[in-house]
Amino acid sequence: MKEKLFVVKIGGALIDDEVLLKEFLTQFSQIKEKKILVHGGGKLATTLANQLGIEQQMVDGRRITDKATLDIVTMVYAGGINKNIVAKLQSVDCNAIGISGADANVIQAKKRNHPQIDFGFVGDITVESINRTLISNVLKLNLVPVFSAITHDKMGNLFNTNADTIASVIAQSLSDDFDVELLYCFDKEGVLADVNNSSSVIKKVSSEDFLALKEAGKLHKGILPKLENALAAAKNNVKKVYLIKETQLQKHTENNHAGTEICLS
Amino acid sequence: MKEKLFVVKIGGALIDDEVLLKEFLTQFSQIKEKKILVHGGGKLATTLANQLGIEQQMVDGRRITDKATLDIVTMVYAGGINKNIVAKLQSVDCNAIGISGADANVIQAKKRNHPQIDFGFVGDITVESINRTLISNVLKLNLVPVFSAITHDKMGNLFNTNADTIASVIAQSLSDDFDVELLYCFDKEGVLADVNNSSSVIKKVSSEDFLALKEAGKLHKGILPKLENALAAAKNNVKKVYLIKETQLQKHTENNHAGTEICLS
Repeated sequence: MKEKLFVVKIGGALIDDEVLLKEFLTQFSQIKEKKILVHGGGKLATTLANQLGIEQQMVDGRRITDKATLDIVTMVYAGGINKNIVAKLQSVDCNAIGISGADANVIQAKKRNHPQIDFGFVGDITVESINRTLISNVLKLNLVPVFSAITHDKMGNLFNTNADTIASVIAQSLSDDFDVELLYCFDKEGVLADVNNSSSVIKKVSSEDFLALKEAGKLHKGILPKLENALAAAKNNVKKVYLIKETQLQKHTENNHAGTEICLS
Repeated sequence: MKEKLFVVKIGGALIDDEVLLKEFLTQFSQIKEKKILVHGGGKLATTLANQLGIEQQMVDGRRITDKATLDIVTMVYAGGINKNIVAKLQSVDCNAIGISGADANVIQAKKRNHPQIDFGFVGDITVESINRTLISNVLKLNLVPVFSAITHDKMGNLFNTNADTIASVIAQSLSDDFDVELLYCFDKEGVLADVNNSSSVIKKVSSEDFLALKEAGKLHKGILPKLENALAAAKNNVKKVYLIKETQLQKHTENNHAGTEICLS
């Protein structure tokens, strides 16, 4: 039997809320099984860019990561946020180690190749991008990897990469060796049938349900890419995939499943 | 016989010079023995603080690391500089992994305790601060640790710690397990008898020489703490300690010793 591994993704809203983050990290530290944390950004990068007068580049309504923006997200994600999360986890006896995709060549990305738009320093990844041997070795040392969403191309360039995708792809790559459960933690109770009613959680969303919900316009902008990444994981051998509320982590991992399960059928 | 290990420290001036840094990292990547890099800061943190209107706090002429400054150095040192160095090393096939003192609880510091001055978020360390088992394990995975000068107290606080001291203390802590050579790389040819004459390199500086040079006022401000840290290493079982010019790294490590050797007698 494979060993259990949780891959847990958290986003910006949680990172920006110091009290909620501390509570979350305490719950995360109490997961007894092997675990990995993947974190996104938060407002700090945007605030800093504004303070420094760096304007956000947009082309056809899509955000571009120019060099100045890359420098900021590298500092904020891989430095400020990552090391603060690691220090907080260390304070609750969770032996965390912060890792970007460049470290130990763990995530080797390709610069996004788009026929019309140059997205700048944005890296796209697949399951093959992940150095799963290295991650397994780190886990064997009883360390808890904490990933920032910065990757590299092994040619000296760093990239900004979507954190939801990183979590999904890491979960997929480790599924040969571990019994992986991927958890997208966010500020909703799960996927909601009615976005204004927190008790309207849909317990299960299959690929078919996803398409139906999408066609019916029931999926708001933020949840769509999360669900796409969640489904990609479910399709590629990740044993369990859930979208859960951040405050429900402990309840969920202690076998009282919360939120929405994402499954193939 | 113990395995050879180089602990190499680089400073701000090199980090700020992109061409020189690239050349240095290429030389560093070609060291065949086990190796560790420790890097300092550079101008970027000060530039950023100025741009953000964060004033440097001074008490009795000593610099204070307040919370705003700590946030900046954490971003710049552990994020921007560290990940750029790691990505550049990866591009020349050196399997680098960026590490701050909080990561894997590798360097546990104590907030500086001074009878008169509160230095803020400044962490002091001793040989006991270093998790040498973890560093050895990382080296066993054929990874090359790249340390930023950020430490933590395992109570959730990050600290700014002197990078020269980190290099010295890491070298000391690993000397039971490795045959360690500590190299302080800087922009001079070594310790100079005449600071204006680059060919006046003193080949060896002993503890006694150090005291004599210090009393004669021959040691300029920048080199004094470097020599103190170098001597501390020589006193605590580090096999070889040198101050060398950054461009001489390859020549030095390929057995044509350059610079100034620091030794007990």
